[in-house]
Amino acid sequence: MKEIRGGITAPLGFLAAGIHAGIKKASVPDLALVVSVQEGPIAGVFTKNRVAAAPVLLDRLHLRRGIGRAIIMNSGNANACTGARGLTDAEEMAGLVAGRVGTAPHCVFVGSTGVIGQPLPMACIRRGVPTLVKRLRRGGGAEAARAILTTDTRAKQVAVRTRIAGRIVTVGGMAKGSGMIHPDMATMLAYLTTDAAIKQRTLQQALLAAIARSFNCISIDGDTSTNDTVLCLANGMAGTPVLRAGSPEFALFQRLMDHACLSLAMQICRDGEGVTKVVEVMITGARTQAHARLVAKTVATSNLVKTALFGEDANWGRIMAAIGRSGVPVDPNRINLTFDGIPIVKDGTSLGPMAERRIARIVRRKEFTVTADLGQGQATARLWTTDLSYEYVKINATYRS
Amino acid sequence: MKEIRGGITAPLGFLAAGIHAGIKKASVPDLALVVSVQEGPIAGVFTKNRVAAAPVLLDRLHLRRGIGRAIIMNSGNANACTGARGLTDAEEMAGLVAGRVGTAPHCVFVGSTGVIGQPLPMACIRRGVPTLVKRLRRGGGAEAARAILTTDTRAKQVAVRTRIAGRIVTVGGMAKGSGMIHPDMATMLAYLTTDAAIKQRTLQQALLAAIARSFNCISIDGDTSTNDTVLCLANGMAGTPVLRAGSPEFALFQRLMDHACLSLAMQICRDGEGVTKVVEVMITGARTQAHARLVAKTVATSNLVKTALFGEDANWGRIMAAIGRSGVPVDPNRINLTFDGIPIVKDGTSLGPMAERRIARIVRRKEFTVTADLGQGQATARLWTTDLSYEYVKINATYRS
Repeated sequence: MKEIRGGITAPLGFLAAGIHAGIKKASVPDLALVVSVQEGPIAGVFTKNRVAAAPVLLDRLHLRRGIGRAIIMNSGNANACTGARGLTDAEEMAGLVAGRVGTAPHCVFVGSTGVIGQPLPMACIRRGVPTLVKRLRRGGGAEAARAILTTDTRAKQVAVRTRIAGRIVTVGGMAKGSGMIHPDMATMLAYLTTDAAIKQRTLQQALLAAIARSFNCISIDGDTSTNDTVLCLANGMAGTPVLRAGSPEFALFQRLMDHACLSLAMQICRDGEGVTKVVEVMITGARTQAHARLVAKTVATSNLVKTALFGEDANWGRIMAAIGRSGVPVDPNRINLTFDGIPIVKDGTSLGPMAERRIARIVRRKEFTVTADLGQGQATARLWTTDLSYEYVKINATYRS
Repeated sequence: MKEIRGGITAPLGFLAAGIHAGIKKASVPDLALVVSVQEGPIAGVFTKNRVAAAPVLLDRLHLRRGIGRAIIMNSGNANACTGARGLTDAEEMAGLVAGRVGTAPHCVFVGSTGVIGQPLPMACIRRGVPTLVKRLRRGGGAEAARAILTTDTRAKQVAVRTRIAGRIVTVGGMAKGSGMIHPDMATMLAYLTTDAAIKQRTLQQALLAAIARSFNCISIDGDTSTNDTVLCLANGMAGTPVLRAGSPEFALFQRLMDHACLSLAMQICRDGEGVTKVVEVMITGARTQAHARLVAKTVATSNLVKTALFGEDANWGRIMAAIGRSGVPVDPNRINLTFDGIPIVKDGTSLGPMAERRIARIVRRKEFTVTADLGQGQATARLWTTDLSYEYVKINATYRS
């Protein structure tokens, strides 16, 4: 497996473009389009938020047919809490692209991100789509990746390839998201493309598995958005035989998907709102996987843990307190804690000033791992979390102003 | 019912004192003692955190006998995650007071708050207790209230009295807490005293009811501490007949307890770490009370909602998003939102720019109410939340430094 350049347009037969259509006040890209030269199966996972945005409702509907050709995305406006008008607007976006590209409207998927509760400025989108279609090109991945950003400071792209059944197969992707990120969800906006030949059901299976190990393991602020979407569009142009679930070829493809999703997820973490640190929270020795995950999630979302990380304070007491309130019946006297492998708590109590000094050095690292062994069983869970900084508060206190 | 001065020493027969014993580096009070002139029933509610501190473990044990005479409290050190030594230290604290005051050790309760995971400096406490006992006096409530503070900026006291069965009955109280505050818990440290004549079981019932409507309805940061404790000590000196559950006299006493607990809870909210606003989150029209409470809790603990409050941004979309991810099967198209009674969302969508401008003025208030009607039933829930400010991050990033 090899990382390459090109992002979402790295696989064969994908074109992309990004432009400033005027949805955002600032003169930055805000409308993106990805098109495959031919239709193919598409897989998707969406937010579990009951207040789902109009584009999510539309995509869910289109996904029932399972065929995709294009994805149009805007930033600057989430088209959420916009009622019937929002749905009409999302449909029109799909229709505009379908007409220009020459495909059925149900083969066009829509993504929106930005402020909630304001109607989409459709005039901008109507003007923008023809320009966007004209700009479509092989090297357009980077500008499309920029056009879907909101409070992100960096574009997030990935492309990996490997040889499967004698042919080069590529998976490309791009993502946006730096707030409202939390494991209990499909995820923020992430789009993947591949030239693998694969059936929709198999693609969906591969996408779900990859998400469970990547986007669903990161937490920035515990909030789940109304718009979270991951889509993966395949066009079969790599020329492999159709990949069958369970085959060694499928296993290779799964590795590509896993790598692409984890790369995008970690890029999102590192670019999280106000993030200065990315910390891996590893829970071991739990009785069940659900227990391990619940404890990991409670630690990863604790504001007291996250502010201590920002302050580079090795305040392991807050980690213990978070473990204790998770709802899992832990025995505090059996808990062992390590920071990057250095023990600090043994059987629930501190190993003393020398250990404290050693971990005080570790918490100054940009990335490190906190491992809590509950001493109750064999189950484990792993999440990545970030610190909570002044900058996070600033970004979110002033977002709409 | 009348609010009076005197705090925890306002009821008949209670003495208190607070001194600097040297547990905190700064020369501020850090050791407090409350003593009743005679033993009496004591009620208690403790943290649900599995990682409970030594004083909580000891108090739970002492509460089995249900009789109290004194409470000793220290700030600057939580005596949590301190293993067997922590328990021995808490026992010694109780023993020191019992010896000086002339009561059984199980009639002495212990409270600690501060840093987790460091052994209590027992030498300070051994030196401090004799001084503390000598200083005990009727007017000592205020200095005791100061001695239990950590990051609090203000002491929190209350005293209320009313006539019950021809006698004046008083409830006094003090509390500390400005971080690690969350509804899913007994609460931070709060101590109440009363001269009412009441059996332990009835007192426990009154305390539980008062907590459910006060301390369990406030949320500052979603974290539940290892040390949270509420105790209420009664000595019967008001001279009423013994108050019986269900009687009109008990109802009057319950009102005193409710008032005292809600006053302390709101003082805690207003003095929350970095708090600039206290916002009431009211959920109506839920199918069940559990639904209403879950939605209220999700809104009240959302970092995105809390940073928007700090920024005085009427970002109702974040409230909608929080409602949507609560896990309650809401129908977004039936949700109505108001800010201090001014409608902004009707049937899930914005009422437009004029309504936006009106609520933009409301979010500048120091205190206001956000009401979400789910349109599904009759159940309601009410919580108070606070904003998330730069100051919160600062306090918690630098707490141990």
